[in-house]
Amino acid sequence: MSAVEQTEQKPDNSFTAERLQGVYDAITKRRDIRSFLPDPVPKELLARVLNAANNAPSVGFMQPWDFLIVENMETRKKIQAHVEQERVHAAKGFESQRGDWYLKFKLEGIIDAPVNVLVTCDPSSFGPSVIGRNTIKETDVYSAVCAVQNLWLAARAEGLGVGWVSILKNNILKDILGIPEHIIPVAYLCIGYVDKFDDEPLLKTVGWLPKRSLDDTIYAERWGQKPDLKYSGYLNGNGSK
Amino acid sequence: MSAVEQTEQKPDNSFTAERLQGVYDAITKRRDIRSFLPDPVPKELLARVLNAANNAPSVGFMQPWDFLIVENMETRKKIQAHVEQERVHAAKGFESQRGDWYLKFKLEGIIDAPVNVLVTCDPSSFGPSVIGRNTIKETDVYSAVCAVQNLWLAARAEGLGVGWVSILKNNILKDILGIPEHIIPVAYLCIGYVDKFDDEPLLKTVGWLPKRSLDDTIYAERWGQKPDLKYSGYLNGNGSK
Repeated sequence: MSAVEQTEQKPDNSFTAERLQGVYDAITKRRDIRSFLPDPVPKELLARVLNAANNAPSVGFMQPWDFLIVENMETRKKIQAHVEQERVHAAKGFESQRGDWYLKFKLEGIIDAPVNVLVTCDPSSFGPSVIGRNTIKETDVYSAVCAVQNLWLAARAEGLGVGWVSILKNNILKDILGIPEHIIPVAYLCIGYVDKFDDEPLLKTVGWLPKRSLDDTIYAERWGQKPDLKYSGYLNGNGSK
Repeated sequence: MSAVEQTEQKPDNSFTAERLQGVYDAITKRRDIRSFLPDPVPKELLARVLNAANNAPSVGFMQPWDFLIVENMETRKKIQAHVEQERVHAAKGFESQRGDWYLKFKLEGIIDAPVNVLVTCDPSSFGPSVIGRNTIKETDVYSAVCAVQNLWLAARAEGLGVGWVSILKNNILKDILGIPEHIIPVAYLCIGYVDKFDDEPLLKTVGWLPKRSLDDTIYAERWGQKPDLKYSGYLNGNGSK
């Protein structure tokens, strides 16, 4: 069988142009959101994005994630107070000018967002012997992160913003939320409606860091070895068809 | 302003029904693939899915990922030989019956797939001071995992299968591919066309482990506390609108 025949015969499992565009739109129009509208998130909408998270891939199908929904304002105030402390502390780690700049950024919407969700990982999910996890233990946490990204993309498509708050200490978060010793907090997410989604990431817009080009991220065959061709030459606009 | 007025006035940033469906389809129809067709993956298609990965979220916009494309057959044979060794070793960790069963699963398509991609993480990307990474160092690797999930979903929408091979040791992989000490291999992916995508994950189908229900994964306000309502009651079918 020739290569041409193979190509003609292979089944087409691709999506329609519109559905494919939906996937690329979610990926390229997703933003890390820090400012939210006060409108409540309908439970059916929250159910759909959590269900997207629960359909993430996981090593050995261990599905190690849990989703802790936090709406109580007292709890959120405690978490925000901790984040504020860490934010001021972190500013001291930057050179002075960048530190001042950093303190001006709004970094989280813990109180503004109508709902917060903590995504956790249970390394003991379904027992000690999990297929594919004997060599790289961290694959359990990686699975939980895939759940986060599923949630984030589904939320974007639904018109919901998500902000990942990473300036916090897991032991303090665990204490506030009553989380057992063996459970790992992976992502503290603020979720809600937004006025608008920016065209590009804030830290790119303000010039904090540049966007890496596709060609900059690619090696071929061995580390440090660049491919003969420029992959970016194949892209038009946002990388969709 | 009443809640009703707020709801009426908030901007609608949601996708069209078809594009939203595309996102949910990618999430629910994505599978971990171990059997591939030999047809080559066009470079423009590989460019689009790598571009999707390069548009992942990252802590402080550090974009710590790189994509090492591996096609060379000698290299792949070395990697597969290592995986095979680890697979047999892992089987000994299961109780005897499950170990026998485990050995029957095809776990990777390193040689079958026309292209392999290693997604890595560079913790030193853009220097030591990265916004939001002072408290949880692992957020760099989490960012690289988000890139993996973007790639996986874009590939599914394009009709391309992806399999994540996690039964390998990073130090051996680094040795084979010439990867520097400080770079972390995050995901070794096999990519190619497939005959068909199964309706559900293989390990569910064969009864290795059950799928967790949405309600099983949700807590409210504090760890261990169940919400008053059943979120699954809001879902119809695959969780899409």
